[in-house]
Amino acid sequence: MKLRLIAISTLVAATALTATIVNAQFAKPDAAIKYRKAAFTVMGTHFGRIGAVVKGEVPFNKEDVAKNAAIVASMSHLPWQGFGPGTEGGDALPSVWSETAKFTSNSEKLTAATAALNTAAQSGDLDAVKKAFGAAGQACKACHDDFKKKG
Amino acid sequence: MKLRLIAISTLVAATALTATIVNAQFAKPDAAIKYRKAAFTVMGTHFGRIGAVVKGEVPFNKEDVAKNAAIVASMSHLPWQGFGPGTEGGDALPSVWSETAKFTSNSEKLTAATAALNTAAQSGDLDAVKKAFGAAGQACKACHDDFKKKG
Repeated sequence: MKLRLIAISTLVAATALTATIVNAQFAKPDAAIKYRKAAFTVMGTHFGRIGAVVKGEVPFNKEDVAKNAAIVASMSHLPWQGFGPGTEGGDALPSVWSETAKFTSNSEKLTAATAALNTAAQSGDLDAVKKAFGAAGQACKACHDDFKKKG
Repeated sequence: MKLRLIAISTLVAATALTATIVNAQFAKPDAAIKYRKAAFTVMGTHFGRIGAVVKGEVPFNKEDVAKNAAIVASMSHLPWQGFGPGTEGGDALPSVWSETAKFTSNSEKLTAATAALNTAAQSGDLDAVKKAFGAAGQACKACHDDFKKKG
């Protein structure tokens, strides 16, 4: 059986703004935890598809890499709103709430790194994609090392 | 404690294309199921935020509604790739795979309805948002009725 896929062609012009909010976005902490996990799952899936190309496991297709990078860059803005006060738990370490400034800084570094990856991907230059992918991967790892439960 | 939120301002220019693929997107069915659930969770969260405004539970803020609608419209393209051959399970009924044409048609209706919601939201016209939200909600329900496990 084959399934028709609605492919996405997205032009993302994302501007990172900062705002001070209390966690009024989610009715219950579990909803915030579910949301942030979901956002990371979608982001990670498309990031992984670029990774497969970078590793040479999948042939380089400029259009596919550009689509995946646009999704990654767009998704990179979303998970953070799911880490509001009172939403401790899931895969998050308590340090998320005790080292908020560092966590926020890391989140902004990831957003910037994925924006750079998207720029490289839209250019269609595989070498640029590889370099930007590596930098974005480091931004993921830096945050996971300090703020995500292991294993 | 307060948490800084990286707000998103996204201009989405999405074109729905169709392509015939086999399910090479995911290494394992569980990954496809997790992905599609995650995409629906993100989409549903932001759709729900517009719903709260439509219901009068949250004051109308044009910028917030526009941001949420842009995310919903962008996300509406994603879940379908997680319903490939061999990915039966999760909340999906077997009808997804036995009535593929109808399922695909429903997915295209949702994508169109969320694009219309985004157009209404970007216009800042609350009445237009309410109308488009209702239509998009019907597109959600139509698919859930036939293709999603109840409860």
